[in-house]
Amino acid sequence: MNQYHITYESISVEEVTNKVNHPNHGASISFIGTTREFTHGQKTVLLEYEAYIPMALKTLEQIGKEINEKWNGVLTAITHRLGKVEVGEISVVIAVSSPHRDHCYEASRYAIERLKQIVPIWKKEIWEDGSEWKGHQLGPWNPTKPL
Amino acid sequence: MNQYHITYESISVEEVTNKVNHPNHGASISFIGTTREFTHGQKTVLLEYEAYIPMALKTLEQIGKEINEKWNGVLTAITHRLGKVEVGEISVVIAVSSPHRDHCYEASRYAIERLKQIVPIWKKEIWEDGSEWKGHQLGPWNPTKPL
Repeated sequence: MNQYHITYESISVEEVTNKVNHPNHGASISFIGTTREFTHGQKTVLLEYEAYIPMALKTLEQIGKEINEKWNGVLTAITHRLGKVEVGEISVVIAVSSPHRDHCYEASRYAIERLKQIVPIWKKEIWEDGSEWKGHQLGPWNPTKPL
Repeated sequence: MNQYHITYESISVEEVTNKVNHPNHGASISFIGTTREFTHGQKTVLLEYEAYIPMALKTLEQIGKEINEKWNGVLTAITHRLGKVEVGEISVVIAVSSPHRDHCYEASRYAIERLKQIVPIWKKEIWEDGSEWKGHQLGPWNPTKPL
């Protein structure tokens, strides 16, 4: 059961959350990102995610390590989905746990911001009348990728 | 499917989280409170929760309304367990969702702090060598309750 996971299948919130269970941890927070229908008034049909998987896993793991250093003992588990993710479906679940809730809120927020910053996952927004790649498509991981 | 629920059964994180699903909400956060084994070095065997149920439901609903006023459109669902809750088991799940994650973090934190402040739920900590009632046992809701 890997704490950091990339999958083309549906994500179970319960499964990711259970990875951070610990008898001394009284609080956990699961952040869930889903495909939403409207962004700035534009109707999204679906999102499509691609990743440079080895580097994505490595950077997810790095986020967990950074969290553990910043908030001693906080456990982290992250699962990100790839491929087509329809409206209402889950693209990412970030679970953290800690003895007390303060650290959970801080660590959870850190994890999602850091994920968007360093994890090489590209997102294609597909609307009724077009599409656009977003995210790390301009990053250093795959400079030959067409825009 | 009530957004605010009090139960003597195990709580499903997925079930509570699904209550705040909305096609325009791209982020949701579920806060999960569990019984932890050690508190200030003292070993807890289990926690036991009691509530003045009608007022507990009313105040949970009030928290949802307050959140909706403070962060327009944020959806909230809260399930709290009563009775015996063993180490590692869930006592409360608070789910919130919003188009964007900022409001989720703020609303989720607000909900748990407010819950502890106004919801008449009593907690008995049962250790290997004793027990103690905590929480609202001194509140105005049930002044005749034995300590």
